[in-house]
Amino acid sequence: MTVTLRIEACLEAALVRGEGGAAPPKLAAALRYAVFPGGARVRPNLCLAVAGACGDDNPELADAAAAAIEFLHCASLVHDDLPCFDDAKIRRGKPSVHTTFGEPLAVLTGDALIVMAFDGLARSGASAPSRLPLLLSTIIRGVGMPSGIVAGQAWESEPFTPVEPYHRAKTGALFVAATTAGALAAGSDPAPWRELGEKLGAAYQVADDLADAVSTEQVCGKPIGQDAALQRPNLVAKLGLKGAYGRLETLVGEAVAAIPPCSGAKDLRDLVQMQAIRLAPKQPARSAA
Amino acid sequence: MTVTLRIEACLEAALVRGEGGAAPPKLAAALRYAVFPGGARVRPNLCLAVAGACGDDNPELADAAAAAIEFLHCASLVHDDLPCFDDAKIRRGKPSVHTTFGEPLAVLTGDALIVMAFDGLARSGASAPSRLPLLLSTIIRGVGMPSGIVAGQAWESEPFTPVEPYHRAKTGALFVAATTAGALAAGSDPAPWRELGEKLGAAYQVADDLADAVSTEQVCGKPIGQDAALQRPNLVAKLGLKGAYGRLETLVGEAVAAIPPCSGAKDLRDLVQMQAIRLAPKQPARSAA
Repeated sequence: MTVTLRIEACLEAALVRGEGGAAPPKLAAALRYAVFPGGARVRPNLCLAVAGACGDDNPELADAAAAAIEFLHCASLVHDDLPCFDDAKIRRGKPSVHTTFGEPLAVLTGDALIVMAFDGLARSGASAPSRLPLLLSTIIRGVGMPSGIVAGQAWESEPFTPVEPYHRAKTGALFVAATTAGALAAGSDPAPWRELGEKLGAAYQVADDLADAVSTEQVCGKPIGQDAALQRPNLVAKLGLKGAYGRLETLVGEAVAAIPPCSGAKDLRDLVQMQAIRLAPKQPARSAA
Repeated sequence: MTVTLRIEACLEAALVRGEGGAAPPKLAAALRYAVFPGGARVRPNLCLAVAGACGDDNPELADAAAAAIEFLHCASLVHDDLPCFDDAKIRRGKPSVHTTFGEPLAVLTGDALIVMAFDGLARSGASAPSRLPLLLSTIIRGVGMPSGIVAGQAWESEPFTPVEPYHRAKTGALFVAATTAGALAAGSDPAPWRELGEKLGAAYQVADDLADAVSTEQVCGKPIGQDAALQRPNLVAKLGLKGAYGRLETLVGEAVAAIPPCSGAKDLRDLVQMQAIRLAPKQPARSAA
């Protein structure tokens, strides 16, 4: 089974479990809508790539880790799009969850996706209970307080938003979770995989800032120009267009260099470079503000 | 250490962990505000009482289970109070989280509390990894889809709300999680403890419906008359006042009878009866609509 099929199958199985019994139909539909069709599934792909490079001796646990990270990412998108945050009407090229299902079901969709992430880990963790506690803690560090996604999002409610902790928490933390959880699911030491996650997370943030500044809603599948409109830190505003493209290139190079020696190193390098090409907005379709 | 002190200490330790490093100050404050001072801590008390009745051979794990259940309960209160649901201005006798910190931080507070629940379990689970997968799954069943708290709340967005599944999911599921998780944390079979949770959850729902119908905001510390205002099922409307008080008494009796034979049975019976006395609104302070 290809990595893509592994991820989609694991997400699908979790959704089917959530639809069982006497599930309320609208929330079940909203969950499915929030997860499928997905974006590039960058984080779960990365997680499974690292698990593969570490031998992938427990594919079920690696799949659960990858799916958990994707569910947590989807949850953050649904809640970030809410009217009280970005009020985004479009996500992944279709109306956002609250636009389609209303605000109450969007709040509950995010909540249910967070819970679903841990449900999959609990189920698959029974096959390797000694790995479960650290695997859970590692993924939780990427989403909770003091420095995971919720912390990143919360920095937007502060009078002063420090750029580095904000970006590290909002974007970088889940990339670090993806690489280190991939190693842990395969029974390997997560430490050598941390830097890869950090560099990729930082690269992804630059790419996202570039897209917000120069791309179009049609290409991105979500509103652009949000950082300027909501007065959020954006690296293009800080470094200029050329500087931001240069930073992206540097970070991708550093990510490639951070891949530890392992049998799957070449595949991983290819994956990182392919993602980098995919992510970088190629031609400014509009001028950066 | 008394049970109450154990619970408060475990909640406090988790909050302190979340406040470490470069935590965004407002979210850290909102989390503390949502958790302290608490209500009656009915669910974590019940969880620890069952763990005690089962020998409590791993108090750290039992504490983490009890704290997880309380964090999940607090998360559900914060999100239920949001303007898109009940728009409740008062909770536990003080302004609700979104009233004090604004809607974005209230959404993030709920999210962070859900994550915090699992963080504590992951940390303490390292002391008994073989118990962790089932303990996690058991607690998750009480909060996720298809029949935990989020499902219960989602029934309010359906055109028809079936009363039994709605109440079982919104209230009963976390009581079942509390009793069965208490047993599991102590290494015992959870099955004999399920009925106690079911009966107590149902009793608590009747007491809550009675309070909503006949009590005052001052006594409850939260808005009353909400079920009628929001056209939600309420057992007083269905059974009448006398019928609802009768149902409560029956359910408390069944809960006491459902306590399995164990060394701590007497203490548990006392706890259940004490909670029942505390919960039942004694004198209608206003007439039921």
